[in-house]
Amino acid sequence: MIDKLIEKIQEKENPTVVGLDPRLNFIPEHIKNDAYEKFGKTPEGAAEAFYQFNCQIIDAIYDIVPAVKPQIAMYEQYGGAGIEAYIKTIKYAKEKELVIIGDIKRGDISTTAEAYADGHIGRANVEGEKFEVYHEDSITLNAYLGYDSIQPFIKDCLEYNKGLFVLVKTSNPNSGQIQNLEVGGRKIYEIIGEMVAEWGQQVMGTKGYSSIGAVVGATYPEEATVLRKIMPHTYFLVPGYGAQGGTAEDLKGCFNKDGLGAVINSSRGIIAAHLQEENKRRFSEKEFYLAVRESAVLMKADLKKVIG
Amino acid sequence: MIDKLIEKIQEKENPTVVGLDPRLNFIPEHIKNDAYEKFGKTPEGAAEAFYQFNCQIIDAIYDIVPAVKPQIAMYEQYGGAGIEAYIKTIKYAKEKELVIIGDIKRGDISTTAEAYADGHIGRANVEGEKFEVYHEDSITLNAYLGYDSIQPFIKDCLEYNKGLFVLVKTSNPNSGQIQNLEVGGRKIYEIIGEMVAEWGQQVMGTKGYSSIGAVVGATYPEEATVLRKIMPHTYFLVPGYGAQGGTAEDLKGCFNKDGLGAVINSSRGIIAAHLQEENKRRFSEKEFYLAVRESAVLMKADLKKVIG
Repeated sequence: MIDKLIEKIQEKENPTVVGLDPRLNFIPEHIKNDAYEKFGKTPEGAAEAFYQFNCQIIDAIYDIVPAVKPQIAMYEQYGGAGIEAYIKTIKYAKEKELVIIGDIKRGDISTTAEAYADGHIGRANVEGEKFEVYHEDSITLNAYLGYDSIQPFIKDCLEYNKGLFVLVKTSNPNSGQIQNLEVGGRKIYEIIGEMVAEWGQQVMGTKGYSSIGAVVGATYPEEATVLRKIMPHTYFLVPGYGAQGGTAEDLKGCFNKDGLGAVINSSRGIIAAHLQEENKRRFSEKEFYLAVRESAVLMKADLKKVIG
Repeated sequence: MIDKLIEKIQEKENPTVVGLDPRLNFIPEHIKNDAYEKFGKTPEGAAEAFYQFNCQIIDAIYDIVPAVKPQIAMYEQYGGAGIEAYIKTIKYAKEKELVIIGDIKRGDISTTAEAYADGHIGRANVEGEKFEVYHEDSITLNAYLGYDSIQPFIKDCLEYNKGLFVLVKTSNPNSGQIQNLEVGGRKIYEIIGEMVAEWGQQVMGTKGYSSIGAVVGATYPEEATVLRKIMPHTYFLVPGYGAQGGTAEDLKGCFNKDGLGAVINSSRGIIAAHLQEENKRRFSEKEFYLAVRESAVLMKADLKKVIG
């Protein structure tokens, strides 16, 4: 998987991943009205609005960015219809040859971990028939339960050429509460970083990086710099740029000298760009995708300053 | 929420929760064939088989046990149809007045955590209309991201009388890899246990326990005994009894002197009881529910030895 992601990053000269975390208040009225006309102001209507909105976002950015990261929580809250909108979004993005990082942050054990792995990155089995259900190229995972909660996913990474990003140091204000606890002079996030680097040796690509990556928040640049050294062959999925306060300058420590090693997420900064005051004046509601596209172009330029 | 769970435990004199973690090979042929006739050997067919199987399990045990714990991974692997089967299972179990613990182990931040909370234990919002989507009474969460990943759920616990069980010490073989790391003389699971106890003070019930509980594995009785002392007002959701190797003797440390404080999960031990060699001889395939019921009765008796 990681080779495919790196190729796309190099082809687009852009290490951006666009977070597809729709909220109804991001979506222009004409898209919502069409969806509500079909399904009412219901979870099904919301799910349809998400999907139609995502398609227009994807159309606006697919030639600029290498990857998208749908956040499953936004869809899951609307039940089965929401999950179907998540899956349809992924399928549409794959038609546009985007790499898909499913932000699911699952973490469980034994046959439960296998069920998550089968559905998301492997194949769900029905009496020997195998079904690809979610179609992600890669997913995020939480490793608090230990290696046996990760191992079933690695098996599917090897079999189906998929990838993982394991939570190491997250971008939120309270992330240090557990992640920064110190064990014999080392922080928990460093210890998990070392584990992730070790696990990753099983799934090395041809370009010096593993298909098992790490989630490392842009809001903690010092920690990111430490982790970059601990795990030189691990790709970082970096949330926290833009809306959460991380700047391009904060990202320097996430990259290696080869200009690779990190893919930077922006969600609201791109998919809600049309709601910024200045953009509201410049673009009509139906032209929202122009604001979205422009924000993706500006982010690419901003990241260019970091990686040269 | 915790008051309702304790009342049900006292009424049934049984601190058992039945794990509704279906797998197709647990399900009798006649149930699967009916489902496949309607939907084919597809994810939709598997989801329908899960739901019909669950209904028969619930019918067989609802007068004996206080609660059920559907494991969402098993359903999620089959996409939107699977999620709908999960929700329908919960609705059916609620009709039978069982307490529902949704085993979802989610953990995320900010608006993402809010979306999970809204969908599962709060209300999903569509243009001001509020929808109850998943109907769980309580859900499991992973706290690796810190308090701001838990807080949105606590808000919904207070507003909608719901509960949480936060992963503290899990039952799997590798659980110690991170959870048993030592920080200044204390293990990570102890530190998280203390946090969970503190968070729980916001949601105290009237019977001495909080609606914020902890997941503590039966397979680690010494750790459970330590945690029982650290968090006297926290209810434990205890996986690992039965199929994973935990015995009734191992459970002693999970309970307080009042005979309360823990609800013990069994999944395969009950919902696949009919596949045990002896039961295969004693019951026909269509009578599988008799084996299921008997195993629930036996578990109740086994737990009686522990709590008296």
